[in-house]
Amino acid sequence: MSEVFPFLRPTDHHRIVLCLEYKGTAFHGWQIQKSGVSTIQAALEAAIAKVADEPVSTIVAGRTDAGVHATNQIVHFDTRAQRSDYGWKMGINGRLPDDISVKWVTQVDEHFHARFSAQERAYRFIIHNNWVKSALLHEVTTWEQYELDVGLMQQAANRLLGTHDFSSFRAAECQAHSPVRTLRELTVARFGEFIVIQARADGFLHHMVRNLVGVMLPIGRGRKPVDWASDVLNYKDRRRGGVTAKGNGLYFVRASYNVGDLPSADPGPAFLSPILSTSTSLFDPV
Amino acid sequence: MSEVFPFLRPTDHHRIVLCLEYKGTAFHGWQIQKSGVSTIQAALEAAIAKVADEPVSTIVAGRTDAGVHATNQIVHFDTRAQRSDYGWKMGINGRLPDDISVKWVTQVDEHFHARFSAQERAYRFIIHNNWVKSALLHEVTTWEQYELDVGLMQQAANRLLGTHDFSSFRAAECQAHSPVRTLRELTVARFGEFIVIQARADGFLHHMVRNLVGVMLPIGRGRKPVDWASDVLNYKDRRRGGVTAKGNGLYFVRASYNVGDLPSADPGPAFLSPILSTSTSLFDPV
Repeated sequence: MSEVFPFLRPTDHHRIVLCLEYKGTAFHGWQIQKSGVSTIQAALEAAIAKVADEPVSTIVAGRTDAGVHATNQIVHFDTRAQRSDYGWKMGINGRLPDDISVKWVTQVDEHFHARFSAQERAYRFIIHNNWVKSALLHEVTTWEQYELDVGLMQQAANRLLGTHDFSSFRAAECQAHSPVRTLRELTVARFGEFIVIQARADGFLHHMVRNLVGVMLPIGRGRKPVDWASDVLNYKDRRRGGVTAKGNGLYFVRASYNVGDLPSADPGPAFLSPILSTSTSLFDPV
Repeated sequence: MSEVFPFLRPTDHHRIVLCLEYKGTAFHGWQIQKSGVSTIQAALEAAIAKVADEPVSTIVAGRTDAGVHATNQIVHFDTRAQRSDYGWKMGINGRLPDDISVKWVTQVDEHFHARFSAQERAYRFIIHNNWVKSALLHEVTTWEQYELDVGLMQQAANRLLGTHDFSSFRAAECQAHSPVRTLRELTVARFGEFIVIQARADGFLHHMVRNLVGVMLPIGRGRKPVDWASDVLNYKDRRRGGVTAKGNGLYFVRASYNVGDLPSADPGPAFLSPILSTSTSLFDPV
C-alpha cells in the first residue's frame, strides 16, 4: 500500500472495502448520473446508506460501461456507522437488486484507496464462438458466429504487450491524462465453444479492452493479418483502429493491491471457473 | 415413430420440426395465453408466421412454466410455405427476440408429432450451491446457500426411480389423466459450486421435476432423512410433499423420438457442457 495517498476524512469515520459481483445488462454502467438512470453505483450507495443510516459516497477500482459485468469489483467508502463485516455484507445484500451482490466486506486503514492504490487491474472477455447464438448466454458473452483462430489472435495480442501509447485503443471521450499504459498480459484460450481473453495492465483507458478485442477479432477470422495489430498500435489514432467489441462479454475480474489482508477470490465468471481450473497453462498469474 | 398418430391435415401442407433454445426469464412460460402476455409460443408463432407468410400453430414436446429454460425444445408445425431448412432457420432466428433461438430445422413426415411421438423427455436442474448468490447467474440457476450433500440427495433420488403414482409431486392444476409415470433416471452430481440433477421419464406431470427437487433439497441439507423421499411418494398426496423448487434452475434438455434422422445436440446448458464433458460416470444416456 502506498504512503502517497493519505486522503483526508473526518477522524470519526472508518474505511470499509467491499467486493462486488454484478451483471451489467440492466444498468447504465457503474457511475451515478445526474439524469437518475439506473447505475450500479446508485443502487449500491442506496443500499449502503440504508445499512449505515447515513449517506455514503463510494470509490471504485475500475469504472465499467453499460452492459459490462464484474466478478470482483473493489469499492471503498467511509462511514461513522459501526457494523460487523458480516453485518455490512448481509445488510447490503438484502437491499441490493438480484443482479448485484457483495462477496465480502472488510475494514481497511485510511491509506487504502480502491482506485489509486490499485497496482494492477484484470479483465476477462468471453466470446461465445458458435454458429448459433446462445439464447441463454446472450447477455453475458459476446457472440461470434464465424470460427476464430485463437493462435492468430494470440500472435496479434503479443504485438500489443508492454508499455505503449495506446491512443488507437482509447475512446474519444477518455479522460485519462496520458494514453500510455503497460499491458502486462493479453492471453487467448479456447475452451470448447468459449474463447477467453485475459488482459492485465497497470490501468486501462476508456474502452481499451473492447478496442483490443476489436482488433483481435478480424485477425482471428482471417480478415486482417497479424501485422495489422502492430500497425494499429503505431498509428496512435483511434480513427484507424478496429471496431469496439460489444461490452456484453466483458468482465472486470480483479484489482490487485499491495495489501496482504484482502480476501482473494476466483476471477471467474463462475460459469467458466470449472473449465478454467482444468487449464494448467493460463490465467495463473491472476 | 409410432403409427398410432396419423394426424389429419390438408394434403398441401408439410410438417416442419425445429429445435429451440430459450431463456425463460422474461416469459410467462411456453403456452400462448388469451391475456396476450409474453410467452415463448406467441413469440415463436409470430416469427414463423412472418417467414411462412401465413398463420401457423405449433405443438411442443414439453410445455415449460414461467422462468423455465430449454436447451433443446422440440416443436412442429404444418405449413404450405416452401422454404429450405436453412431459410426457415435464418428467417425465424432473424425475427425472434435474443432470448429465443432456433438451433436446427428439418422437414419430417406427417406421422411425427412433437408431443405424442416423444418416447422420453429429459430435464436438468442446475443448483448454484454457494454462500453468496451469483449476481451473474441468478436467472439461470437456482441458488442454495447451504452446503448440500449430493450423496444423500442421490440416495433419496434412488427411492423415486421406477413406475409410480407421482401424485405427491404433481401440481394441483395438473391436467394429465393419470398420475403414473416411469422415472428412468434421477442422478445428482456436483461440479465445483454447481450441482446438476438430471431426470428422464416417459413424461412428467406439471411441476414434477421441481417437486422432485423440492424433496431432494431438504434431504441434501440434512433437515429430512433419506427415507422421507419414500414417505412422500407413498402418501400420494401433494399436500404432504415438499416445497416446489424455483423454476429458474430448470431446463428442458431433450425429447427422444424413434426417428433416426433428427439432428442430435448436446443437452447443455452450454455454460456447463465443458464441465459435464469431463464426467465419465453421468449423463451419457441422454
